[in-house]
Amino acid sequence: MIYFDNAATTRPDGEALQKAAQFTTELYFNPSAKYGGGFAVSKQMNAMREALLAHLNAVGKYDLIFTSCGTEADNQAIFSCGKRGNVVTTAGEHAAVYSACNELKNRGVEPRFAPVERDGSVKIESILSLVDEKTSLVSVVHVNNETGAVNDIAAIAKAVKAKNPRTVFHSDGVQAFGKIPFAPPPEVDLYSVSAHKIGGLKGTGGLFKRKGLALSPHIYGGGQENGQRSGTENTFGIAVFAYAAEKKFKTLKEDEIRLKTYREMLFSALDGEIFVRLSPENGSPYLLTVSAVGMRGEVLERMLWDRGLCVGTGSACSSKHRFSRVMTACGYGERVLDGVLRMSFSPATTEEEIKEAAALLNSTAKEFQRNTN
Amino acid sequence: MIYFDNAATTRPDGEALQKAAQFTTELYFNPSAKYGGGFAVSKQMNAMREALLAHLNAVGKYDLIFTSCGTEADNQAIFSCGKRGNVVTTAGEHAAVYSACNELKNRGVEPRFAPVERDGSVKIESILSLVDEKTSLVSVVHVNNETGAVNDIAAIAKAVKAKNPRTVFHSDGVQAFGKIPFAPPPEVDLYSVSAHKIGGLKGTGGLFKRKGLALSPHIYGGGQENGQRSGTENTFGIAVFAYAAEKKFKTLKEDEIRLKTYREMLFSALDGEIFVRLSPENGSPYLLTVSAVGMRGEVLERMLWDRGLCVGTGSACSSKHRFSRVMTACGYGERVLDGVLRMSFSPATTEEEIKEAAALLNSTAKEFQRNTN
Repeated sequence: MIYFDNAATTRPDGEALQKAAQFTTELYFNPSAKYGGGFAVSKQMNAMREALLAHLNAVGKYDLIFTSCGTEADNQAIFSCGKRGNVVTTAGEHAAVYSACNELKNRGVEPRFAPVERDGSVKIESILSLVDEKTSLVSVVHVNNETGAVNDIAAIAKAVKAKNPRTVFHSDGVQAFGKIPFAPPPEVDLYSVSAHKIGGLKGTGGLFKRKGLALSPHIYGGGQENGQRSGTENTFGIAVFAYAAEKKFKTLKEDEIRLKTYREMLFSALDGEIFVRLSPENGSPYLLTVSAVGMRGEVLERMLWDRGLCVGTGSACSSKHRFSRVMTACGYGERVLDGVLRMSFSPATTEEEIKEAAALLNSTAKEFQRNTN
Repeated sequence: MIYFDNAATTRPDGEALQKAAQFTTELYFNPSAKYGGGFAVSKQMNAMREALLAHLNAVGKYDLIFTSCGTEADNQAIFSCGKRGNVVTTAGEHAAVYSACNELKNRGVEPRFAPVERDGSVKIESILSLVDEKTSLVSVVHVNNETGAVNDIAAIAKAVKAKNPRTVFHSDGVQAFGKIPFAPPPEVDLYSVSAHKIGGLKGTGGLFKRKGLALSPHIYGGGQENGQRSGTENTFGIAVFAYAAEKKFKTLKEDEIRLKTYREMLFSALDGEIFVRLSPENGSPYLLTVSAVGMRGEVLERMLWDRGLCVGTGSACSSKHRFSRVMTACGYGERVLDGVLRMSFSPATTEEEIKEAAALLNSTAKEFQRNTN
């Protein structure tokens, strides 16, 4: 099986899993417990927190609140900081931000969605034109999870703060963390990350919060995470996250260069009569989205699965509608939208897999054509 | 090390952990993915869900929404169903319910706290006297996590519904699930559970929801968990939970009887001149709370840790204040409150541990007395 759906979720890193199992078997105590065992777990959790902060050069500048997933981190940012006036975001957001912003309508806050470009990115001007003195929050995804387009969130955040310094700036960094070199500038107040996109487990995420920013909890209770996220900490998931991230960040730059080559290799090997490229060249090297124009992507997806290639058709999180909301917002017509396929990689991806995948994509699409003609 | 702080968290079940690691290594796919691997994970998740429902005889009557912890489940119940009028709860609740109810004040909803009895339980009349036509939600803990008192939530729920049939009834069952025989009657609308109190991992919980009850999400996004809890499912944690629960429920009744004997054995062996019992005899067999009157519980706790006995001083989740809020609500004076120690067991607890623990508790308290006199 060639697994090219790493943007949906990655295979957990075996070493990280094993190391965390050992950790949790020895240090199974509740980190809030006021005895040696509790203190030891709490100390380890904080060391892991610092290590994760260090990956973004954020030690001393940001706090890291451990959450149960990227979605919860996004929700906390939006519901905590989007309490009045309007909230500006984009039409290219992940459902975690998009749906939370839509829910704001029920809470008396106006969500404003900036249009996206053909590649899924958003222009600074599109954001700025929606920001006014009543904008409490701006949320812009770092790497678009369906096209791989990278938004220059540092520049956007700076421009937003220049227009309204009281606006909080949040970015969903789930597809960027551990993949794209990044250190948040002070204008980025909040940054969401997830473990299971980089070899960690589903059920672990985090919210980087600029020190000094007041945030209200999304989950209330025993006051864990410095009062910002209650509930006993997922110590096992956090340990896997920390170990997996350590590995990912160690080779981040080499992986980025290699995967960019692989991505281009894959696209070049695809039949130009069948596949149209939707991902931008300056996007994340971790994913390539194409369309087999006029074909049904989900049928191709299942045919490819049967042949040993696992790809996605877009966000695995929102497949209720025929067409992807984000790809529709990019402005494509039905024939392109129907045929969307997303191939997403990991550092474990090999050149052989790329070549084999290209051959499978070409032959399967041709077979689809023969069957439907 | 004798580990008697199982009410704070249990040591994860090694077999369950290993089985889940195998599961997640093979079936690492995103359960929302629309290909064979995704379907397979989704199918397994649903089988685990049904198995967990079956433990409470709730198949076909309840849905089970997987959450990131008991605290999140409590929060979803309270914020979703406590949107208007008043919410009635008790002074003996876990912080997850207590803090969420306090937060309701900021949202225009009045929380009402029924007083608790000396043992931490609540009388039906104390609840009923606060319920009126504007009560949107009643939330009563099943097993008090600090005293072990068991509330007859079936009877309370019935009485509440008789007084106001439109009131939603929720119970925090975190210290009951897998320990106390229970099947929710139809009057119990919502029931929160947690994995890490019964050999599962921290970071996994669930909310049993009576079929037909409309609930709004607490976390918005891709629409997982039938639209009721977004965020990629914590498949690993859910698997450990399901495996651990299977084992727990298999021996639930024998464990209950044996641990009740152990609890009484422990109390009988404690020096009656030092320790006063705070847990009721008809409470959970899984825990015994006493007070070494006039001594400092947290000092004893650390001395005991150094001697190889791990006990708690109350809820591990809320140790900011000198005295426990719940134990204070029970009506004890400062000298009793100071000396609170909670011993909480698991099915792995042995008779030898009970005897050794009693001896350590007696000798350590005497040493404390010698040192402070």
